[in-house]
Amino acid sequence: MKQSNTFIPTLREVPSDAEIKSHKLLLRAGFIRQVASGVYTYMPLGWRVLQKIEKIVREEMDKAGGVELLMPALQPAELWQESGRWNDYGPELMRLNDRHERPFALGPTHEEVITALVRDEIKSYKRLPLTLYQIQTKFRDEKRPRMGLLRGREFVMKDAYSFHTTRESLDETYEKMYEAYSNIFSRLGLNFRAVIADSGSIGGKGTHEFMVLSEIGEDTIAFSDESDYAANIEMAEVVTTYNKKDEPLKELQKVNTGEHKTIEDVVTFLKIQSEDTIKSLLFKVDGEFVLVLVRGDHEVNDVKVKNLLDASVVELATPEETERIIGCQIGNVGPIGVQNVKVIADIAVQYIVNGVCGANEEHMHYVNVNPDRDFQVDTYADLRFIQEGDPSPDGKGTVKFAKGIEVGHVFKLGTKYSNALNATFLDENGRSQPMIMGCYGIGISRLMMAIAEQFADDKGLVWPEVVSPYQVHILIVNMKDETQTSLGFDVYHRLQKAGFEVLLDDRNERAGVKFADSDLIGIPTRITIGKKASDGIVEMKDRQTGEVKEIAVDQMINELAKA
Amino acid sequence: MKQSNTFIPTLREVPSDAEIKSHKLLLRAGFIRQVASGVYTYMPLGWRVLQKIEKIVREEMDKAGGVELLMPALQPAELWQESGRWNDYGPELMRLNDRHERPFALGPTHEEVITALVRDEIKSYKRLPLTLYQIQTKFRDEKRPRMGLLRGREFVMKDAYSFHTTRESLDETYEKMYEAYSNIFSRLGLNFRAVIADSGSIGGKGTHEFMVLSEIGEDTIAFSDESDYAANIEMAEVVTTYNKKDEPLKELQKVNTGEHKTIEDVVTFLKIQSEDTIKSLLFKVDGEFVLVLVRGDHEVNDVKVKNLLDASVVELATPEETERIIGCQIGNVGPIGVQNVKVIADIAVQYIVNGVCGANEEHMHYVNVNPDRDFQVDTYADLRFIQEGDPSPDGKGTVKFAKGIEVGHVFKLGTKYSNALNATFLDENGRSQPMIMGCYGIGISRLMMAIAEQFADDKGLVWPEVVSPYQVHILIVNMKDETQTSLGFDVYHRLQKAGFEVLLDDRNERAGVKFADSDLIGIPTRITIGKKASDGIVEMKDRQTGEVKEIAVDQMINELAKA
Repeated sequence: MKQSNTFIPTLREVPSDAEIKSHKLLLRAGFIRQVASGVYTYMPLGWRVLQKIEKIVREEMDKAGGVELLMPALQPAELWQESGRWNDYGPELMRLNDRHERPFALGPTHEEVITALVRDEIKSYKRLPLTLYQIQTKFRDEKRPRMGLLRGREFVMKDAYSFHTTRESLDETYEKMYEAYSNIFSRLGLNFRAVIADSGSIGGKGTHEFMVLSEIGEDTIAFSDESDYAANIEMAEVVTTYNKKDEPLKELQKVNTGEHKTIEDVVTFLKIQSEDTIKSLLFKVDGEFVLVLVRGDHEVNDVKVKNLLDASVVELATPEETERIIGCQIGNVGPIGVQNVKVIADIAVQYIVNGVCGANEEHMHYVNVNPDRDFQVDTYADLRFIQEGDPSPDGKGTVKFAKGIEVGHVFKLGTKYSNALNATFLDENGRSQPMIMGCYGIGISRLMMAIAEQFADDKGLVWPEVVSPYQVHILIVNMKDETQTSLGFDVYHRLQKAGFEVLLDDRNERAGVKFADSDLIGIPTRITIGKKASDGIVEMKDRQTGEVKEIAVDQMINELAKA
Repeated sequence: MKQSNTFIPTLREVPSDAEIKSHKLLLRAGFIRQVASGVYTYMPLGWRVLQKIEKIVREEMDKAGGVELLMPALQPAELWQESGRWNDYGPELMRLNDRHERPFALGPTHEEVITALVRDEIKSYKRLPLTLYQIQTKFRDEKRPRMGLLRGREFVMKDAYSFHTTRESLDETYEKMYEAYSNIFSRLGLNFRAVIADSGSIGGKGTHEFMVLSEIGEDTIAFSDESDYAANIEMAEVVTTYNKKDEPLKELQKVNTGEHKTIEDVVTFLKIQSEDTIKSLLFKVDGEFVLVLVRGDHEVNDVKVKNLLDASVVELATPEETERIIGCQIGNVGPIGVQNVKVIADIAVQYIVNGVCGANEEHMHYVNVNPDRDFQVDTYADLRFIQEGDPSPDGKGTVKFAKGIEVGHVFKLGTKYSNALNATFLDENGRSQPMIMGCYGIGISRLMMAIAEQFADDKGLVWPEVVSPYQVHILIVNMKDETQTSLGFDVYHRLQKAGFEVLLDDRNERAGVKFADSDLIGIPTRITIGKKASDGIVEMKDRQTGEVKEIAVDQMINELAKA
């Protein structure tokens, strides 16, 4: 493609509305343009990157046994009413009425449509399992669209849905999808982790998120420094073992700690360690009050509280509720003497000897507190957030933290949608059973941004070969020099003939502008046709390493063909 | 692809909601499924056909210099207000508010978005011309969605837009697009015509529609039986020459024709020919009344009236208006004695000698009417519809009629949108000029249906090779016969290795079901693995010709590879 014929509007200025590197660069290099908040046009270069990502996703989905189709964006409200999500989804679901005042949703996802489709067409176990996928435009009315393609309102997704007769069959497809996703993100050259995620009421290892590691990520991942273990921090199991201090139990005492309220203040005041203190938090769990205890240097993980109690909603009690139930301010709560409230504690609490906790009254703390002697705990369990330095839950190495951008998600849905929409099959004995489902998503447009975030330097984008909009960028330094233009076009045609995707900068621009644009756009190999054109010598530059060499044209073409 | 792994739900019954052949067959063969009125899922086979059509469209668009991008479906209302179409488009424009109550349209077309994009990015003549295109999902809230993908509410289109500094540059691109479109429809094997269409106020040959000839088409085309001339009948110029009858002018007479009112009745009653009568119709043209005369055997073409008078709205006068202006019922109107109303007549009227017309009173007609003697005409012009048998307007052959499905449209927009959205460039002299635009659409999903309509027989679909979902369909007659299955899978793998797209019917179904499904799906070549499998002999059938032969496997693969 000749640059004079295409549409690559590069910008010198950093756009004021872009906060993160990839967003700035994709705007500056002319890959995307905003049409409305969270709504973008994929410009010719951006569109080429998207297509390459899609091709890799398709190849791996096909290899894993997925079958492609295309469902519509317009979805009748009735389907969403059947699943219950017409109400549950909230304002993120974009809704409209047609000219006959019939309500529709613009699909943010397609569980309803595909479940109804398979329900209507498949009646027998003989036709299952089946994995269907599409690459399609989705709509989600984000409250605060931000970070370019990371939180958009119209975006491209690959979504897949599988249908099964047994849990084992679902597990098998889940594994295949997990592998396919690993292949996809590996082929894209991304630094990613498959992360154990919150599967809610399904439990177990029923869901993984695929996270690209990046400082701008909105999720925190706990991962092992020695294995491939990774989990969302809410999901990371704590397997730390604790020991009791070897000292005699002392007599429980109430002491006045004055205005010292926070763990930090109390620890300094009493000259103790924070691991000797007990943090006590009153929660409201599905409407009932529960006192949760963790060590002072730990944080309560409410997902674990929720899972332990098999609850739907876990929230901190308000100051008023705390006052009413415990009879003191939030900062003074402690477990001793509390009645009619369930008490659960993190395992680490059980190992505290002669510790410190709040006394349920202003200015006072208990010291020499010993669990099970001074207060009763209903259940000890893993209830805290993992911390950097904790042993990895898989027994290999220790835990570190990183930030991640979610680019994929595999999920065992079970029978949630097949029950709601009555998608059943007849088993081998002629009995009607609900289909068992899985769903699997990849954010295609988000991936473009995640790649740009991971592959860039201070000069611009640095595309991996497999997704680069073009493979070779030819730059003719001086378009008024006939030797240069003639060699430039010759090299252009020869490389195209050899099967390369080539962008040719044939613009009448200053060399400085052309070099800057080329670095900004970030095609892996640049061939500069300059003064040595008369000797058949060009400059070959590797965008990633910055390595530059002068080379004869024939040799250059051979070298590229070999790579 | 093994049929046991994919999703091809065929139907024996003819779906009750489908009226036309292609719609019935695409439903029965499992290519599409309706999600809501005018909203479809493209099932795995349908999706493959769509992709193949898209590939051909892309190749030809790229060859013609088009550059691909992707614009969003969500379009801010402000852009549509700028162009004036927020009001003009009417209820076919799907509209919604986002969570902040900001209004959006779901794009039925992208003139506004692309004009704003190019306006914001291109300032200089140096960056023009530019042709951008996308293949994207469109929304149009049809009042009465019908005929499956022909009149849908969500559909796939290729839309292209070109931007120019001069009319000549637009003409050049228009020619390229016209050629690209001809190539596309030729490659798809369609029987089509490029048809001169109504370009409204732009005039001249500023627009062509590409029509696939089909009985179910909603448009009538006039085409030459000897050349490639074709036009929408409203647009077809009449070049017929007329002669005056060689007889003396007789005296004008008013006669009582009793209850005979229609041309047909009067002609029989008076024992004359309908070509000797004058049909007089009162129109309201932009609010003014105009009397339009054509010969009794001709029909008024209101597009020609509109173009002659350079008007916006042309409609027949109501009975009340006719009574008020002419003083009689609609069926009695004639030109003699009419005052204060403009009179225009088709050229044929001028050649009438001793004709017949209404007398503006009940039961009465004039006979021996001679134009220019008995009444005055302001303008004679071509005002009638062309008829079968008229000479072709290009001077070659005579005109025939056919019905057509519009699958493509090329249009010289001029400066309509660039003026409205202020899309200007600086010319070589530094003067600001509006960009000159063209737009070019192809209905991708509609094409699938048009192809199905043209390529089908009483057994099912008969896909042309280039768009067939697969190239070869292997059918194993008896899955319990190990020789057959073993040869079947062997042939399957060998054909795949040889680069063919193969569908393998490996289902445990009766042979009759498999044969019927295969004919219904319509893949060009069927290889049946039956009883002669033990001798390495298979049956090879051409879906189109029905030709069947027994052939050794090696030979069959060679033959396919050569084709």
